[in-house]
Amino acid sequence: MRLFVLFLLSIISLNTFADDGYRLWLKYDRIQNEALRKTYAQKLATVSINFSDETSKVTLSELEKASLGLLGVKTKLVGSNASLVLKKEILTDKNSEAFEIKSTKNQIVISGNTSKGVLYGVFELIRRIQTSESLENLKIASSPKIQLRMLNHWDNNNGTIERGYAGMSMWKWYELPERIDTRYIDYARANASIGINGTVLNNVNASARFITAEYLGKVKALADVFRPYGIKVFLSVNFASPKILGGLKTADPLDPEVKQWWKNKADEVYKLIPDFGGFVVKANSEGEPGPMDFGRTHKDGANMLAEAMAPHNGLIIWRAFVYNFDPKGDRFAAAYNEFKKFDGEFLPNIIIQVKNGPIDFQVREPISPLFGAMEKTPVSMEFQLTQEYLGWATHWVYEGPMFEEVLKTDTFAKGAGSTVAKVIDGQLFKYPLTSMIGVANTGSDRNWTGHPMAQANWYTLGRMAWNPEITSEKIADEWVKMTFQSDKKSTETIKKIMMESREIYTNYTNPLGVHHVMGESHHFGPEPWVEKAPRPDWTALYYHRADTVGIGFDRTEKGSNSLAQYHLGLRSKYSDINTIQPEFLLWFHHAPWRHKLQNGRTVWDEMVTRYYEGVKSVENMQRQWASIKGKIDSETFENVEARLKTQHKEALWWRDASVVYFQKYSKMPVPSPYQKPARTFEELKSLVDVYHVK
Amino acid sequence: MRLFVLFLLSIISLNTFADDGYRLWLKYDRIQNEALRKTYAQKLATVSINFSDETSKVTLSELEKASLGLLGVKTKLVGSNASLVLKKEILTDKNSEAFEIKSTKNQIVISGNTSKGVLYGVFELIRRIQTSESLENLKIASSPKIQLRMLNHWDNNNGTIERGYAGMSMWKWYELPERIDTRYIDYARANASIGINGTVLNNVNASARFITAEYLGKVKALADVFRPYGIKVFLSVNFASPKILGGLKTADPLDPEVKQWWKNKADEVYKLIPDFGGFVVKANSEGEPGPMDFGRTHKDGANMLAEAMAPHNGLIIWRAFVYNFDPKGDRFAAAYNEFKKFDGEFLPNIIIQVKNGPIDFQVREPISPLFGAMEKTPVSMEFQLTQEYLGWATHWVYEGPMFEEVLKTDTFAKGAGSTVAKVIDGQLFKYPLTSMIGVANTGSDRNWTGHPMAQANWYTLGRMAWNPEITSEKIADEWVKMTFQSDKKSTETIKKIMMESREIYTNYTNPLGVHHVMGESHHFGPEPWVEKAPRPDWTALYYHRADTVGIGFDRTEKGSNSLAQYHLGLRSKYSDINTIQPEFLLWFHHAPWRHKLQNGRTVWDEMVTRYYEGVKSVENMQRQWASIKGKIDSETFENVEARLKTQHKEALWWRDASVVYFQKYSKMPVPSPYQKPARTFEELKSLVDVYHVK
Repeated sequence: MRLFVLFLLSIISLNTFADDGYRLWLKYDRIQNEALRKTYAQKLATVSINFSDETSKVTLSELEKASLGLLGVKTKLVGSNASLVLKKEILTDKNSEAFEIKSTKNQIVISGNTSKGVLYGVFELIRRIQTSESLENLKIASSPKIQLRMLNHWDNNNGTIERGYAGMSMWKWYELPERIDTRYIDYARANASIGINGTVLNNVNASARFITAEYLGKVKALADVFRPYGIKVFLSVNFASPKILGGLKTADPLDPEVKQWWKNKADEVYKLIPDFGGFVVKANSEGEPGPMDFGRTHKDGANMLAEAMAPHNGLIIWRAFVYNFDPKGDRFAAAYNEFKKFDGEFLPNIIIQVKNGPIDFQVREPISPLFGAMEKTPVSMEFQLTQEYLGWATHWVYEGPMFEEVLKTDTFAKGAGSTVAKVIDGQLFKYPLTSMIGVANTGSDRNWTGHPMAQANWYTLGRMAWNPEITSEKIADEWVKMTFQSDKKSTETIKKIMMESREIYTNYTNPLGVHHVMGESHHFGPEPWVEKAPRPDWTALYYHRADTVGIGFDRTEKGSNSLAQYHLGLRSKYSDINTIQPEFLLWFHHAPWRHKLQNGRTVWDEMVTRYYEGVKSVENMQRQWASIKGKIDSETFENVEARLKTQHKEALWWRDASVVYFQKYSKMPVPSPYQKPARTFEELKSLVDVYHVK
Repeated sequence: MRLFVLFLLSIISLNTFADDGYRLWLKYDRIQNEALRKTYAQKLATVSINFSDETSKVTLSELEKASLGLLGVKTKLVGSNASLVLKKEILTDKNSEAFEIKSTKNQIVISGNTSKGVLYGVFELIRRIQTSESLENLKIASSPKIQLRMLNHWDNNNGTIERGYAGMSMWKWYELPERIDTRYIDYARANASIGINGTVLNNVNASARFITAEYLGKVKALADVFRPYGIKVFLSVNFASPKILGGLKTADPLDPEVKQWWKNKADEVYKLIPDFGGFVVKANSEGEPGPMDFGRTHKDGANMLAEAMAPHNGLIIWRAFVYNFDPKGDRFAAAYNEFKKFDGEFLPNIIIQVKNGPIDFQVREPISPLFGAMEKTPVSMEFQLTQEYLGWATHWVYEGPMFEEVLKTDTFAKGAGSTVAKVIDGQLFKYPLTSMIGVANTGSDRNWTGHPMAQANWYTLGRMAWNPEITSEKIADEWVKMTFQSDKKSTETIKKIMMESREIYTNYTNPLGVHHVMGESHHFGPEPWVEKAPRPDWTALYYHRADTVGIGFDRTEKGSNSLAQYHLGLRSKYSDINTIQPEFLLWFHHAPWRHKLQNGRTVWDEMVTRYYEGVKSVENMQRQWASIKGKIDSETFENVEARLKTQHKEALWWRDASVVYFQKYSKMPVPSPYQKPARTFEELKSLVDVYHVK
């Protein structure tokens, strides 16, 4: 028997110490502190619930899973006098997703206006246990500040994910609707745990296939899985669907047949999925069809679809990511120019979805001028979780600080304090609809996100959408504790790396506001020398504009004057080359190489310094990571350790490629103490060329 | 303590009863029969080994894993008097991969000429334990009948797999060489356990990227992982690489610069990977570049590459899958016409890789006439494990009986008994090189193959390549026992379904030798009405040739006369419409709808009967499967149960589409007792059309 127990123990320890990352932040390994564990166990000994529906089932199931895992006890369901009471009741806060947690000496009560509120409350309780917080004298009242908190999956019908770095699509279309992969359920659990309540299943570059009857049956199966977790399903639609699927001659939004086709389609969708969320549309953008193909406008297109969806309370989420083919223009200004003019003319079930920055998810962008500009039209925040421009799945970039920077940026739309967060959560303009979305970084990879640390970005989206004023540091703290359940030193070490990671990545890839200098089309590695592409605004030169004088895109009134799209308060932060925060310098100014920054260095010297210090910081990340060896599970440790090696290799590549290339223009030496890159331009160019080989 | 043990037990039972399929046939769950377990445990109590290298490490590690899992004991490594002795020694059989297993009352001795032989012997021992066989008085001597036993991965550089239905490529190119995914090791273990000793990492439609210095470094990392398991790495190459990568003006195989480029490339490859296997080439086939682009021949191309590889003992595996654009011709005859003429003119390090049938991996094909035709050139068997035409990952098709049918087919090349197996294993023509390959069905899916039952096809390839005369039933028996470790009744039930599955699939999709009637291009579902495609031989009509008279492709002397490519003995089995086995009828004859088969039914009635009986057989599969509920782990049970539902839905689709379409030509009624399909042609056509929507 002793041997047997020893054997069992060895399995347990295997379970504990080799972690493939599948369980995400809902890890639920046994809490090591016995006293704490016992205290919690007492609190969760018995549970009662005053309602029964699909959501109550999954709520109790989650509670049981957490309790068994974290505490080693099976919660007992009782009729009364439970130590944990779950109940639906009318709260002071009428938000349908609100919850309260109150605790007395012998009882914790979690209540919600709806079963969904209770589910969120239970996840909050579990989080507090996972993060070793006290459950004494709780008086929590919480409700989401943003209504729609959503993931956008850029998943194609062939199973690939556009800009996905974590495997294939999780949706197994050829198995649906008959087979429900267990991953669908765990996906829903993870989302519910962070308050995500919507998911767009397919790519915004949308195949019309998804709204055929055949595929709607499959979508329904997913909606049925997600519903108990409070998650609504959305689809991206192809604007030309009436032609592609309906055989109509046109997709003109003003054509009666087209309107009718969409009405019928909406009816069909809602007959199958009564709580379907809505359609997301990328129209007249990067080759996608749209109303402008028929001489109509974005407004015409969006309103036509909104009319079709209105009887069902369905939403139209219309993306503002548009930019015309204009070699002389400034892509920065395109979305504002196209959408500002229609403010107030969109039907009430339309949300305009705006990427955080004016270009395309660069590692640092100033905010899109549309935030603060659309007073009568709800705008949604679109963040990108998948690291298209942030090092794919081999660079460790915690995006929390980036999101926080964006949300805290003051638009000055109604004077100082008009932050983006307040635009997005509807406070500023009293938007009736509010939304924040993340372009998902999930895929079929066992650990969901490829880089184990990228799970934090998914987690962050949910937490920030619930409360856009939460700090990225607080989120990192929660996530690390939940994910690693490690000791204090390791927790602090990991958090520290996370908090620095985005600035480090910026330094070795895009210092001082350099942007859009990645490998053309595939977006891998550095390629600042791209001067030709199918469109000028797909080159790097278009953005960095390096010449013998200097570098950067002049967006002041002497240049493209896109700065004018901001309210004065924000504009004035950027308009003066001498006072602008150096991180944004080259977004707005063509700065002479020898221009002196406030720290006394020239632009060139500062750029080079950042490239080199960025690389050194990665070495520091490696050292810090090495210091926690043995403190977290070995599989994750080795996984991250290996990825940091790749990150270091690629950081060197970025540094050398950038320095060698820009030096052609600056003609200035690499400042001491740094050594000039040993590699030639040709060697560095050949590295990215490999990835252009079809 | 008791509670704790109970809890631990609950974890164990979870481990045992929910199986995600990752462990494949190396499941190693505890053997339930205690007496048996103890007997085995005694035999494996102590182990000694007389050599130490990378292979010995993995051999001992596997032994430990198996012993701990199956028997619950940790084998103890001792210096002498071990119960299990592993040793390198010179065997009677000089084959470098041979092994012997001999057992006396107190000792089992596994010996090999090389450490690889010992590894194979250990896997044989484990298999015998997994299948509950006696280890008493063993006198086993085994060596592979085929030298190169290989998987071909059709994996692209973007991570997709051409015709893959189990997720993405397992090779994480952007993480390599720094990060070694644990799956690489488990892949190697699985292959070694069934004797697979080669792997082609990338698609035959080859990107030149794989032979850049950058990618060769990544390939080396994989080769290093696989080497201890006796697996050599191969790459598919793009024939135009000297132009694409080398910047040469031509890829003409007779051009001195081109020759030199390939010599240099071969040197570069072997400097990194001294035991690199060789290059696989798909040339002048389906748009791939090749020597004929420069007015040269397959012989010229293959020999040029073979010269470059010869100094390193590298192989060139040249695929015979070619067919010219000839609307009047018969694609059936293309490979023979192109390659037979060069027999004897290929350099000795060349293997011609031939698909089992003359067309393209249809569910039943007569053998390629090249088997038995190439007397002086080694030909390799290419089977397809991925179920491109066999129902993807939702239809359960055990391919063993198909492979067996092919291998047992008599070519009559040297009179009766000249089976394909004897061609392939080199007996018949004394080939100095022998090879059998399977186009892999593996991917990043957790269970490797999508359909849990498709793992059996991978297993079969290895076992049949080791011994092409083993029966598919014996293999099924091994695989089911190893994979499910269930009771006798369940084992027999699963085997029975497996053994019938391919004929069932044939019946509801391609009865009587119908072929190539699947969805155009995507190859999903039925689309026998395809009459137009980029090439006539990509239509369905080209193959079934249905008209008001009859159906089938006349390949007798009255038709294309492709039958003449077979030796007389085989030809005469197919040439007479009255004596041909009905399963091959429409491969060789345009049979009148009213032609009577030997069972008295007309061709039409027999076709319809098979479509309907095929569907009913799926229902029977479902019933049989349902009968083992609770006898195998629930996750696999439910997974297969759901896939069988999809299979049934699609079987009905195939049946109805085929019957409704062909009835347009036959104008004959659906024979009783079968009911005419309720769906219209338009309804059925729209189903496949969905999958043509981009």
